[in-house]
Amino acid sequence: MNDIKKTPRTQAKLPRGFGDRGPAEIAATERMLAAIKESYRLYGFEAVETPFIEYTEALGKFLPDLDRPNEGVFSFQDDDEQWLSLRYDLTAPLARYVAENYDRLPKPYRSFRAGYVFRNEKPGPGRFRQFMQFDADTVGTSSVAADAELCMMAADTLERLGVQRGDYVIKVNNRKVLDGVLEAIGLGGDENTGRRLTVLRAMDKFDKFGDEVRLLLGNGRKDESGDFTRGANLDEDQQHEIMTWLHSNAQLVDVSSLRENLRADAAMLPEAPQNAISNDETLKVFRGHFGNNEKVEKGLDELQAISDICSAAGFGTRRIRIDPSVVRGLEYYTGPVFEAELTFEIVEEDGRPVRFGSVGGGGRYDGLVGRFRGEDVPATGFSIGVSRLYAALKAINSPVVAGAQQRGPVIVLVLDQAELARYQSFVSMLRNAGIAAELYLGSSGMNAQLKYADKRNAICAIIQGSNERDKGEIAIRDLVLGAELAASSKERADYLELRTKAQFSVPEVDLLKAVKEVLGRHT
Amino acid sequence: MNDIKKTPRTQAKLPRGFGDRGPAEIAATERMLAAIKESYRLYGFEAVETPFIEYTEALGKFLPDLDRPNEGVFSFQDDDEQWLSLRYDLTAPLARYVAENYDRLPKPYRSFRAGYVFRNEKPGPGRFRQFMQFDADTVGTSSVAADAELCMMAADTLERLGVQRGDYVIKVNNRKVLDGVLEAIGLGGDENTGRRLTVLRAMDKFDKFGDEVRLLLGNGRKDESGDFTRGANLDEDQQHEIMTWLHSNAQLVDVSSLRENLRADAAMLPEAPQNAISNDETLKVFRGHFGNNEKVEKGLDELQAISDICSAAGFGTRRIRIDPSVVRGLEYYTGPVFEAELTFEIVEEDGRPVRFGSVGGGGRYDGLVGRFRGEDVPATGFSIGVSRLYAALKAINSPVVAGAQQRGPVIVLVLDQAELARYQSFVSMLRNAGIAAELYLGSSGMNAQLKYADKRNAICAIIQGSNERDKGEIAIRDLVLGAELAASSKERADYLELRTKAQFSVPEVDLLKAVKEVLGRHT
Repeated sequence: MNDIKKTPRTQAKLPRGFGDRGPAEIAATERMLAAIKESYRLYGFEAVETPFIEYTEALGKFLPDLDRPNEGVFSFQDDDEQWLSLRYDLTAPLARYVAENYDRLPKPYRSFRAGYVFRNEKPGPGRFRQFMQFDADTVGTSSVAADAELCMMAADTLERLGVQRGDYVIKVNNRKVLDGVLEAIGLGGDENTGRRLTVLRAMDKFDKFGDEVRLLLGNGRKDESGDFTRGANLDEDQQHEIMTWLHSNAQLVDVSSLRENLRADAAMLPEAPQNAISNDETLKVFRGHFGNNEKVEKGLDELQAISDICSAAGFGTRRIRIDPSVVRGLEYYTGPVFEAELTFEIVEEDGRPVRFGSVGGGGRYDGLVGRFRGEDVPATGFSIGVSRLYAALKAINSPVVAGAQQRGPVIVLVLDQAELARYQSFVSMLRNAGIAAELYLGSSGMNAQLKYADKRNAICAIIQGSNERDKGEIAIRDLVLGAELAASSKERADYLELRTKAQFSVPEVDLLKAVKEVLGRHT
Repeated sequence: MNDIKKTPRTQAKLPRGFGDRGPAEIAATERMLAAIKESYRLYGFEAVETPFIEYTEALGKFLPDLDRPNEGVFSFQDDDEQWLSLRYDLTAPLARYVAENYDRLPKPYRSFRAGYVFRNEKPGPGRFRQFMQFDADTVGTSSVAADAELCMMAADTLERLGVQRGDYVIKVNNRKVLDGVLEAIGLGGDENTGRRLTVLRAMDKFDKFGDEVRLLLGNGRKDESGDFTRGANLDEDQQHEIMTWLHSNAQLVDVSSLRENLRADAAMLPEAPQNAISNDETLKVFRGHFGNNEKVEKGLDELQAISDICSAAGFGTRRIRIDPSVVRGLEYYTGPVFEAELTFEIVEEDGRPVRFGSVGGGGRYDGLVGRFRGEDVPATGFSIGVSRLYAALKAINSPVVAGAQQRGPVIVLVLDQAELARYQSFVSMLRNAGIAAELYLGSSGMNAQLKYADKRNAICAIIQGSNERDKGEIAIRDLVLGAELAASSKERADYLELRTKAQFSVPEVDLLKAVKEVLGRHT
């Protein structure tokens, strides 16, 4: 029909930053998503789904690193010249959805959704251009009880997924506090919006760059590759204030980690505030720093309320911790911001142990829905990085993702092409009994067919050559015992018994019974 | 923090051809996908997933209507100038995947996957630019037993989804037959590849355009909107041969439908070949038309084999029918082609009854994996149009998608902001018992809160004002009985009893017991 094969050969490879997934990872992810959904359902959230493509303008541009080509977003022009983009997160599309359906939705509107998002960024090890997020959002309430609830839900969800108490912490800060700090050094007002964002993103890198953050607060910083990042052009005094703030936060966190390291077994002491600096203590230190600024005061009051609500519901400092070092790079946050961090260590490729780190985050974004409505609509949300969390659950061998070995179908061998219809009838009988089964469809001989069955991880193979057929029989090969047999010596006491069980013949009418018996041996 | 709200208002709408989905449709689709997966698993297929974005060259361009802008595919250039595209189907990415992992995969390689695909086409009613497909493919065998199996699996899957036997048919044809027919009128050879495709696509429109297809075989056809489609430029004799072929096919199908209309109740007569023209009869007529061409002979032999295998497995003509009118528009098919058609009628918006029509299709594409390997790799696949099938299942009210009304969480009312922590503790207690529950997070009064609970479709609400609190009690409102009460008259015999059950108070310690009792009344 066509001459495809005669054109020059095409390369079979994926663009960088994209990956395939096999059956084990797919099954594990499905179990993981089901557990998250169940947790969100208990909290009263309902499912919603939006498409992958939206008007570029509707999504807005709130990603960090705006100076990248295409600003981090995959975009293309529609026939009518309008720009369309692939969604880069699940929050911007939700804001559009709520605005479009505002009148008919219950308010507060509580929803969750999982799906792939896309970033047109330079991919690197562990950095993908397509990855999955799982979000929950509450739109239509300014009550910090909504923020507190998201933090508690994040904690509950991690435990449901097999992360032990003490191995994670939900860290909470408030953009109002950060804004107040920046206002206090003369960076208040609408005219400084862009600069504030640059400063916040610089602060967010204190973990990574330490004192070099000062360069980002000043004229800018050149990295090892020679790439230059423009700075916020703060003056010396302003830089000093910010660096002081960062260092005193670091001290606070250090004290907290120090105490945390002294902690007894987490299972024995599910909440042990005596071993970690309490949220009340942290808030006291905060107030000491910048407590005389109105925005800071408001922000600290909200954090106190969140801490109180969580504490009343039994979620103490060990699980949900006020932490002034949390920033979050996205532009649209307006209030409380959260980060779910896994505190256990994993061993890097270079043998160095590191904290696993963040697997999700979120915060309040009161302006995002308002873009469409001309008035603020309060909203808050939390997003899990599914691929990253999956890696974490694998690292701790969580039963949610570990699961049993996946078994293949029963393979019916084809030893005589003229008997295809007969073999097909065996397959149909098994399928009708709810047993996964298939006819071998290749053109190889018996040994290759048995190898195929092994590769498919099948428990048994059905064999009928002319010998068996003439006697009205079918041979059942137990591939699991067969492998055991092949690995053992004839000296073995039960060798003969094993051999008898590893392959045996039954009358055709007993096929189903025999297959069920063999499957029963190994499941 | 930011001045988002002060920028001009953004429009909250989706580009045409894209849609959102709410909780009921999401839940129904999940049940539907689970049923399809279970069916495919029984047939021995395993899951695989590829990303949404691939190199444009790796996907190839095999869509019909190549003259559309961007040729039907959403594409964009990467930083290194290479073109990337959103997948337009799930077959092209599978071909890339198999070629990339050829040596480690078992062969034949049997896999399934579900996911959204994208077409950059002019959207219309019921035509989406993002829609879901569910594919199964067998790669690495040229045996038509693989094609037959896909047809049987499609039939089994439709029945598992609630489509009654007799309400669907899997129609099978063979591109080799069509190629032979075209060869016989002088359109053989590689130099005519493009023209053959134009003719095939014209033939595929006989259903829709009838005799006007002749224009597409000749110079071209202008539609009502004035758009011109170029024709295949066949001469008079060639046009005549094709039109004769189309008309005799139509007659054949007519006879078949005629007999089908006489059929007895499908449940009583699961296979009733006497009421439909048999596959053997059809193949005889076929041979009479063009049986002296080698390609046609080969194609007919394959169809006979498929029919025989299906028949031996108990799938007769009623379910799997050889039908010469099936073409399939995609370029890459090289052998058997299938189409799953729902034969029941639905009523169009204009009141006209129409056959529901195709919900999936597929065929053999031996050259597609070979593009990457420099040699043909035999392969065959079947694809379900999930969104379209979902619409069909809704139309026949299949239990798979109908499902029970979705119930919302228990709503704990907030009547006193100072008692937030106390209300929160009720919520936590319910959640810990596995009951979905939430704190009302808005700022409205009691009546609005109860309305919210109704809108969430909650079964009950938990109420504690200062009266109840002083007595250490909690009121439980049964919202289902409450609605019944509101709609009934005081004259009703059990009015008082109903009123007592619709709202009652219990001591705080009995909250869980009381909620369970109310939930038990309605589930």
